[in-house]
Amino acid sequence: MAKKVLIVYAHESPASFNAAAKDAAVAALTAQGCTVEVSDLYAMKFKAAATTEDITGGVKNAENFCYAKEIKLASEEGRLADDIKKEQEKLKEADLVIFQFPMYWSSVPAIMKGWMDRVLGFAYAQEKRYSEGIFKDKKAMLSFTTDCPESVYSDTGINGDIGINGDINVTLWPLQNGILNYCGFQVFDPQIFWDPATGSPESRSSMLEGWRTRLQSLGGEVPMYFAPLDYFDKEKGFLLKPEVKEKYATAGRLCSIC
Amino acid sequence: MAKKVLIVYAHESPASFNAAAKDAAVAALTAQGCTVEVSDLYAMKFKAAATTEDITGGVKNAENFCYAKEIKLASEEGRLADDIKKEQEKLKEADLVIFQFPMYWSSVPAIMKGWMDRVLGFAYAQEKRYSEGIFKDKKAMLSFTTDCPESVYSDTGINGDIGINGDINVTLWPLQNGILNYCGFQVFDPQIFWDPATGSPESRSSMLEGWRTRLQSLGGEVPMYFAPLDYFDKEKGFLLKPEVKEKYATAGRLCSIC
Repeated sequence: MAKKVLIVYAHESPASFNAAAKDAAVAALTAQGCTVEVSDLYAMKFKAAATTEDITGGVKNAENFCYAKEIKLASEEGRLADDIKKEQEKLKEADLVIFQFPMYWSSVPAIMKGWMDRVLGFAYAQEKRYSEGIFKDKKAMLSFTTDCPESVYSDTGINGDIGINGDINVTLWPLQNGILNYCGFQVFDPQIFWDPATGSPESRSSMLEGWRTRLQSLGGEVPMYFAPLDYFDKEKGFLLKPEVKEKYATAGRLCSIC
Repeated sequence: MAKKVLIVYAHESPASFNAAAKDAAVAALTAQGCTVEVSDLYAMKFKAAATTEDITGGVKNAENFCYAKEIKLASEEGRLADDIKKEQEKLKEADLVIFQFPMYWSSVPAIMKGWMDRVLGFAYAQEKRYSEGIFKDKKAMLSFTTDCPESVYSDTGINGDIGINGDINVTLWPLQNGILNYCGFQVFDPQIFWDPATGSPESRSSMLEGWRTRLQSLGGEVPMYFAPLDYFDKEKGFLLKPEVKEKYATAGRLCSIC
């Protein structure tokens, strides 16, 4: 199991189910001998908006400010704002990062998107991404609550997209692939607490018990599959290599040939 | 064409391509006789985090704070924070809402997610959603810049997901379906400015010219297709009705039978 864990947590109320899920994770992981650090974004009043203030000593191109470029340069030169630096230090130490949040509008709450925009900004690098991403030796996972039952996200559910055979993993694609996999994280299946608010106290206890149990053997789980970087041709705009495409065509699914 | 347009805009620099795209839209729409309102989120220092402070006069359940429930109740009782109220008034007036932003980590910047979390919170209603959503008489669209060429989002591109035949619309699904369609908006195809930063000044001018031209006939565009609410059975957890599923199976694509 991972030795150091960072939980990035976004709920304002200590009495919430999200707080209970976070506390359960801290307890279960600590019991396994892990060191657990929690970034409680609301308690920290974490600044969500990505701004020029995130760079100390002046930005390179103030007139036509490009956040991604400036943040990368500032990171290389040690000129990031203190709150970003602190989070990056926690991140550097962590073997596993758990994002604990209530799903807001099919994604993370803005305060957590702000953490991703600002803290992970330096990891946005076309040369080192996906399976070559800078966090390729780390693991990450999303753990969140919904306010709807699982059925609505099935392939015939109203939140699913019939046209693209959608389930919750389509909704999570920008987060799990676009952010976590992009940075190189090995991504564990999401921990989803379906609609705890309308369930009974027993069902909530049972969800938390399931979470504790899962955490006990998380280290043995196989991370989700994403196509590795070398399947794509850098010289040709990062398109899938024809030989991989061919294998894929006969094997049915790209993941079955790796 | 729409008479009143709200542009929700998220870029810090007035010299950015995003600013130019916003200005081009203001000019082109005004020239058509539209009234255009701009919410310049960075200039407004718009609060991104959804917090208890968004509700005046005390929250109903402070101990176990649920933002979605509290915001809906506060909205019904006129107890929302002033900055949310102001945005909601602009929204109420608008026939078309354009979100103009640089794509950050496969989504909107945190400050814009904060606008969505806080201003659209009251529209999150299971009874009135999708084709019955409260903004069903309004139109909306995403207009954004990327820092990658279009090829990476093709079905064999590295940002696409081969397993789910992904293109940029998979990445945009949580925004376009999960937020805009959920609220009832008729969603126009996204306006995507592919990697303006690495192009020539001529290519940027040409992109803006294309945007102006598109805006001249936007009113005639057919919005994107999403399955209507009555295809789903409310009594059965909002699953697709068997008769619709059957038609879909023979017609090939659900959208072709509507």
